[in-house]
Amino acid sequence: LFSKQGYDATAVAEICESAKVSKGAFYYHFSSKQAVFLALFQDWLSSLDQQMDKLQQSDFSVPETLRFMTELIPHIIATDGDRFRIFLEFWNQASHDPAMWQITIEPYQRYQVFFAKLIAHGIREGSIEDVDQQIVARIVVALALGVLLQGMVEPVGVDWEEVSQQGIDLLLDGIT
Amino acid sequence: LFSKQGYDATAVAEICESAKVSKGAFYYHFSSKQAVFLALFQDWLSSLDQQMDKLQQSDFSVPETLRFMTELIPHIIATDGDRFRIFLEFWNQASHDPAMWQITIEPYQRYQVFFAKLIAHGIREGSIEDVDQQIVARIVVALALGVLLQGMVEPVGVDWEEVSQQGIDLLLDGIT
Repeated sequence: LFSKQGYDATAVAEICESAKVSKGAFYYHFSSKQAVFLALFQDWLSSLDQQMDKLQQSDFSVPETLRFMTELIPHIIATDGDRFRIFLEFWNQASHDPAMWQITIEPYQRYQVFFAKLIAHGIREGSIEDVDQQIVARIVVALALGVLLQGMVEPVGVDWEEVSQQGIDLLLDGIT
Repeated sequence: LFSKQGYDATAVAEICESAKVSKGAFYYHFSSKQAVFLALFQDWLSSLDQQMDKLQQSDFSVPETLRFMTELIPHIIATDGDRFRIFLEFWNQASHDPAMWQITIEPYQRYQVFFAKLIAHGIREGSIEDVDQQIVARIVVALALGVLLQGMVEPVGVDWEEVSQQGIDLLLDGIT
């Protein structure tokens, strides 16, 4: 329903009708429409997390792991361009509710920690120079966020995997 | 009004009342509330453009120009965190109107062209290697967008100028 008609235009009543559940059953599981969106979003994120974890647990060095991660970029950028609008609608509503906003930005903070740990691991294994892992993690997250944002605004005509690949390569040039 | 009560909560009637103009006078100058926001936004962008142009017309090399531009980052990140919410509200409404959306994303496309030209200039002056100027421009824009996005979500406690400075330095390491 969200992807067909947008987030704002979808009412809880329609979700209940589609899922063939009562409003009581709905509110037993979800506190709001935002909570449903968040559950879908976290579901989608956990498949991304699994792929990232798999890369991290393999025998690749940290620079190789970072390079492989850019292959995930095209899968995150939706080619229909609609996903960005749905996210905008959701972010807009979530930004009015401090508790919901905290839950919304939590994944971004988790990625910051993830990349700081990955960089620290690279320093320990000797594949990355002795850099400030927090700052380099913020740069990696900035690059990823910036490519995803550009990719959602301009989903066709640009090879965003190539852009992020070259961005990571240039970054690695300076720290390996 | 936008910054005090938010974009969505501000009605054209209130803008007219505050500005002491009739609705007729308002609609003579602006087609909608979105058009007012866009005018304010473009006003703000043009002061940013002026500072960027000043840097570009100076005697600095392109790598120096890119480094100096990171000093603009803290001025763009609003420390009150409210600006991001207002932008979200505006983007959300603009995304439902294809013509307004085109106008909204035009500055981003302009920065892409700006940085591609700047990189091309660096290649000509010999301060930057013979790289793909479009791809490097997208990486610079990604880095800037990503830092701004993170900075708007987390406006205090992180030195975003330092993060963008180091990001640009690492990038320049690979192309100078």
